[in-house]
Amino acid sequence: MIKRLAVIGVGLIGGSFSLALKAAGKVEHVVGVGRDPENLQLALERGVIDSFTHRVEDAVKDADLVFIAVPLGSMTTIFEAIRPVLGKDTVFTDGGSVKGSVVASVRSVFGEIPANFVPGHPIAGTEQSGAGAAFATLYNQRRVILTPQPETSAEALELVSQAWQACGAEVICMDTGHHDEVLAATSHLPHMLAYSLVDSLAQMKENDEIFRFAAGGFRDFTRIASSSPQMWRDICLANREHLGTMLGRFADELNLLAEALKNGDGETLLNQFERAKAARDRYIDGV
Amino acid sequence: MIKRLAVIGVGLIGGSFSLALKAAGKVEHVVGVGRDPENLQLALERGVIDSFTHRVEDAVKDADLVFIAVPLGSMTTIFEAIRPVLGKDTVFTDGGSVKGSVVASVRSVFGEIPANFVPGHPIAGTEQSGAGAAFATLYNQRRVILTPQPETSAEALELVSQAWQACGAEVICMDTGHHDEVLAATSHLPHMLAYSLVDSLAQMKENDEIFRFAAGGFRDFTRIASSSPQMWRDICLANREHLGTMLGRFADELNLLAEALKNGDGETLLNQFERAKAARDRYIDGV
Repeated sequence: MIKRLAVIGVGLIGGSFSLALKAAGKVEHVVGVGRDPENLQLALERGVIDSFTHRVEDAVKDADLVFIAVPLGSMTTIFEAIRPVLGKDTVFTDGGSVKGSVVASVRSVFGEIPANFVPGHPIAGTEQSGAGAAFATLYNQRRVILTPQPETSAEALELVSQAWQACGAEVICMDTGHHDEVLAATSHLPHMLAYSLVDSLAQMKENDEIFRFAAGGFRDFTRIASSSPQMWRDICLANREHLGTMLGRFADELNLLAEALKNGDGETLLNQFERAKAARDRYIDGV
Repeated sequence: MIKRLAVIGVGLIGGSFSLALKAAGKVEHVVGVGRDPENLQLALERGVIDSFTHRVEDAVKDADLVFIAVPLGSMTTIFEAIRPVLGKDTVFTDGGSVKGSVVASVRSVFGEIPANFVPGHPIAGTEQSGAGAAFATLYNQRRVILTPQPETSAEALELVSQAWQACGAEVICMDTGHHDEVLAATSHLPHMLAYSLVDSLAQMKENDEIFRFAAGGFRDFTRIASSSPQMWRDICLANREHLGTMLGRFADELNLLAEALKNGDGETLLNQFERAKAARDRYIDGV
């Protein structure tokens, strides 16, 4: 049982973590921290949190667990705010989509990796954001990746693992760099492609007409282009090295297709489409 | 009322056209044509068609309307088969995703564009195929683009328009080349990107693990990569000119992003993501 949980950033990710733990009966009091008073008020009214404050320090003091669910670009500011007030027994974790940059940020602010820090990333979300979008089952049967550091204590890891499991999630531990490589492939690159596609089309002269004739495939394909631009700018910058590698790999593949298209080479097109369909169908069977 | 409808290619597109017209009470008898006996038998059992034959000639004779819903690569073969037996009063139309290549094929087989030919393209579909996937409401509130030629008779155009409207669709007439340009942007390019992305990932060493950590965004983004590879090879080849232009435009946009990423230029990333989100949100509001 967590007596006092501090959620810094009461949006979709932070708010859903709180709602899931409340639904599981695993938390007594949740204090939310944020900059937007309207969002915090909404969170309070929806029962996402039990109280709120605008001062990180007040929330963190006496908390058993601190969950930091702010955009990657704000992580360092938060770490700087909590460092002076963090109690010895307070475990802190985060929900950032890139783990290398968060770990580096903690190391630079604290001068080391504290034993009670557990880097984490829930593989879940929607294109919505804010406390109004939070719901208790967001993490149900989803995976949460933790990237504990050599300095991370077994007790801290255990507490964070149990919290995520109480949310219905499967917890997996992974190397920090490997996490960032895998996510560049399955999440960060697709977001860049969806944004690029929609922007390419929006810049065409007849763009209103073009969108008018888009079908269901287009709607699904571009759903992630409705995600928060600020959040995704931060993610792309934070994971620029791995993402750059994936972008290069994708560009090579696309060049091969363009070349085959130019040459009327149907066999190359078919081979690629067949490989992709087989992989995609295998993936769907495994979900 | 259509007395006899011949559906050549009883898959998702052809079968759903038949089911929709039957549901609307607008057709007396539907004869299906195809090469796969099991698929035709299934179509008969599901009430998608009333009879079937493997000989195009037998189906087309005495039909009021012929709907050709075969992959683009098979269109010419079908046109060659129907030409000798096509009655003067039989109107024929198709559901091909590229219209320039279909019109060219008809012109080459018939030596001209017959007055009773109406090129068409329903903007609807799922990643499923076959008669088992057909359903009566596929075209409900969807758009169907017709690209009548100068030679197309007003009567033929009227018959085909009414049939699609009876299926619940909105009918729009468009220039042939413009259709192919618009569809390259909204449909053909997204399919190429989805196939390329999945194939890029599938070729990575740890590909099973990578797919394991894919979230909902990836599933939606890549849904269209489960579409029929043969069908999409045909579409890409048939629309290679417009698709090549769109691919080039997209590659330029992606290069700008890669450059911004390399330079840590968050402003360029943010601007592009914001433009894309605004366009995508406008599009969704308009659907």
